[in-house]
Amino acid sequence: MKSEIHGLAVHAAGAQLLPFKYVVEDLSPHDVEIKISHCGVCHSDIHLINNDWQISRYPFIPGHEIVGEVTAVGSDVTSLQPGQRVAVGWQAGSCGECEWCRQGQEQLCPRVQPTCVGRHGGYADAVRVQAKFAIPVPESLPSEGVAPLMCAGITVYSPLKNFLARPSSRVGVVGIGGLGHLGIQFAKVFGCEVTAFSSSKDKEEEAKTLGAHHFVNTRDSKGLKKLESSFDLILSTVSADQDFQGFINALRPRGTLVLLGASPSPVAISASSLLGKDRGLAGSNTGSPHDLAEMLDVAARHNVVAMTQRFPMKDASKAIEAVKKNKVRYRAVLAN
Amino acid sequence: MKSEIHGLAVHAAGAQLLPFKYVVEDLSPHDVEIKISHCGVCHSDIHLINNDWQISRYPFIPGHEIVGEVTAVGSDVTSLQPGQRVAVGWQAGSCGECEWCRQGQEQLCPRVQPTCVGRHGGYADAVRVQAKFAIPVPESLPSEGVAPLMCAGITVYSPLKNFLARPSSRVGVVGIGGLGHLGIQFAKVFGCEVTAFSSSKDKEEEAKTLGAHHFVNTRDSKGLKKLESSFDLILSTVSADQDFQGFINALRPRGTLVLLGASPSPVAISASSLLGKDRGLAGSNTGSPHDLAEMLDVAARHNVVAMTQRFPMKDASKAIEAVKKNKVRYRAVLAN
Repeated sequence: MKSEIHGLAVHAAGAQLLPFKYVVEDLSPHDVEIKISHCGVCHSDIHLINNDWQISRYPFIPGHEIVGEVTAVGSDVTSLQPGQRVAVGWQAGSCGECEWCRQGQEQLCPRVQPTCVGRHGGYADAVRVQAKFAIPVPESLPSEGVAPLMCAGITVYSPLKNFLARPSSRVGVVGIGGLGHLGIQFAKVFGCEVTAFSSSKDKEEEAKTLGAHHFVNTRDSKGLKKLESSFDLILSTVSADQDFQGFINALRPRGTLVLLGASPSPVAISASSLLGKDRGLAGSNTGSPHDLAEMLDVAARHNVVAMTQRFPMKDASKAIEAVKKNKVRYRAVLAN
Repeated sequence: MKSEIHGLAVHAAGAQLLPFKYVVEDLSPHDVEIKISHCGVCHSDIHLINNDWQISRYPFIPGHEIVGEVTAVGSDVTSLQPGQRVAVGWQAGSCGECEWCRQGQEQLCPRVQPTCVGRHGGYADAVRVQAKFAIPVPESLPSEGVAPLMCAGITVYSPLKNFLARPSSRVGVVGIGGLGHLGIQFAKVFGCEVTAFSSSKDKEEEAKTLGAHHFVNTRDSKGLKKLESSFDLILSTVSADQDFQGFINALRPRGTLVLLGASPSPVAISASSLLGKDRGLAGSNTGSPHDLAEMLDVAARHNVVAMTQRFPMKDASKAIEAVKKNKVRYRAVLAN
């Protein structure tokens, strides 16, 4: 049964979004179709539009922070029903057979299917994904505030979970933006003592409202120096080059600096600064469908949602411009 | 009660070892005195002799891989008795009060007392240390083969323990020397599939005898490239600059490259190579007294000892020359 999905696609690196439609045929047995109500605008969408990572295939519809309603389920889908509200993040499918899929770590599957790489994503009226990657949304959470949790949110939630953040942990969150403003909120939920790092002094008050106990202006070069051996975990949410050695030095013994953004230059760290105190540097990549469901459950109980700025879906280009100019606090969300 | 300890000391950066004696007074309540039978020669001793780390205080007696017999115990010592065979590693004391000491992670104590920094170590006839840092040696282990376990051994044992090496793990050991030849043996004991990396092609046979399943010549630039996404854990035991990015790329998802040697240049890693696969880079620093006891117990059950070359204590300078020239396979040990 053929039908058409309408969205906004990019046809070449860096090009404007243009109306676009594609035809879908019979729904695969394990897939669901979702009528999209909201889709967040992530910096990764802009990287994909510009082909910064050399993985984009044109034309494509960006968007991977999706909330909507299930409108159809494949013949083998038993976990979801039409009418359910669900959300989709960076992944839309995986092989289901490899060691990572079998462990419930589908985000590490070598054949993982990103939602808007080599297929069409969420700046559209509908999308199809494997049922496993459509996560039911707890009733109390608003769709607009949930959409950004699906990429920005899980990206900060996963390292807090995997590096065992707990009430005794001292956690730093570098950058107060789409990821960082959620990182502060989730770190507070884990019970941590939270320090926000930002180059924007005017974000101090908001950072503290979100749950930060301390604020450090990263333009003050002495600020970081004073904090040597202070943190168990630092989440770096920024994609620009930073004083990464300074953040390593700010770690307590056994502490870890987790990179969540891909800075352009190599990260250069002195071996001796890691050796003496068992410190670490790590990367972290979104989370599994199970992690997403867990995060939404935690978000519902603790009332964690993104601070958003809404744009009509047709104005996606305007939203992207606003994101590029760093004018959005803290996440643009497109609404149908 | 005064007595004299005789040893070989360095009086200035890079100087020769010269006979030296120092006077000790009443034994502190928590200390023990040890009559030294053996002391390993570690590269760290040479770094200290040369003041490479700017922490040396002269004159000092090097040596921190000590085996000997308890000859006297302080008034509060109940855990050891004269006549017991014990071994001492990098640490000779700690504050006993900080959060790390309370957790049994004394090696991370900010006031930890290294055995031969700011005090006199094991190139001597005797040494005094806090009783907690004198580890009883299982009867079946030979003193000469045990001495190098106390620094080289624990340095490779700790990351295998802390990064949860297990029979399903694929482990790489970079460098087949004092540390590496023990790393291969311990990785085998943990049940891992072990790959040895060395720039010395002629060490292949020995690496396999020690327990390596595979050998990679690091002078063959294609060898490492072929191993992309192959290892859960890589222990880098070398202090020279390496293709660290290549070793990061050789990690499987969630894998960690652990640095055990302080390479001179900063370690430069692309953030994106860490991000996509949740990879990590970490440093690791010896181990706690509990870890040392555990390691000796494991070594006794699995017959892990160092391959050694013995020198009379008076020939310590000759041993150091041999170590500097990379002529020792794999650990020089001084014997009284």
